[in-house]
Amino acid sequence: MTEHSLWRFSRALHRALNERQYADVEALIDDDIDWAIYGPIDMFPFFGARRGKAAVLDVIKRIADNVRIHRFERESVLLGADSAASMIRYSLTALDSNKPISLRLAHFAKFRDDRLVSIRVLIDTFDLVEQALGRSIHLPRLAS
Amino acid sequence: MTEHSLWRFSRALHRALNERQYADVEALIDDDIDWAIYGPIDMFPFFGARRGKAAVLDVIKRIADNVRIHRFERESVLLGADSAASMIRYSLTALDSNKPISLRLAHFAKFRDDRLVSIRVLIDTFDLVEQALGRSIHLPRLAS
Repeated sequence: MTEHSLWRFSRALHRALNERQYADVEALIDDDIDWAIYGPIDMFPFFGARRGKAAVLDVIKRIADNVRIHRFERESVLLGADSAASMIRYSLTALDSNKPISLRLAHFAKFRDDRLVSIRVLIDTFDLVEQALGRSIHLPRLAS
Repeated sequence: MTEHSLWRFSRALHRALNERQYADVEALIDDDIDWAIYGPIDMFPFFGARRGKAAVLDVIKRIADNVRIHRFERESVLLGADSAASMIRYSLTALDSNKPISLRLAHFAKFRDDRLVSIRVLIDTFDLVEQALGRSIHLPRLAS
């Protein structure tokens, strides 16, 4: 059984983010990729939707300019024939402030011919914003 | 092929939330269920971790007291033998304020003998908090 595309893509992406070596990940991205990370783009301009390999490589480079991955733990994973979903807990450093950031995300990815054609990433963004601000945001208790 | 446990659980949960009919969902929850919805529990006390059927039924009832589901669209889904992950976009009403809430979540669920034994739910919580507050939270642009 050959290795699932998720594992190859994951290694290449982490290499891109931490070592700024982009050749592996570039080879694993479909020309017409459909990419989205949901979250506040005002604060994190590398969130949001991107279409096509050039735009996605650019955003991966911007993420690499902003964070370094220290550890990650894949808490859940489901693999389909050409698809994969996982929930991952990352320990990062924000490079500008040198602050640690702990982040949980879920992704749903689709592959074709071993290349990533679609990915949607969801993040517990309120927790992320508070960590990036370095303070709590006061919230009223809304629900009963 | 029998129906996947996800579909039966999903129908029962939506019936519980919208019609306050809890018998179906109660029958599909394992006694020792491990449940977590990640998000700010100060604002939404029904977020957080719960263990065991009684605690989970209680939290489902609290969610039912707070929201009504109008529509949902399952944007991605992956099914394993006894597991399932999906990304879902919900259109809700907050019952106290009568305000519409649009919410995207991802869940990873595990089943045993057709019963839910574990679920982890991740939400784009910053977007949710802004909608619940009814205003934007000003954010600095942190990243380059």
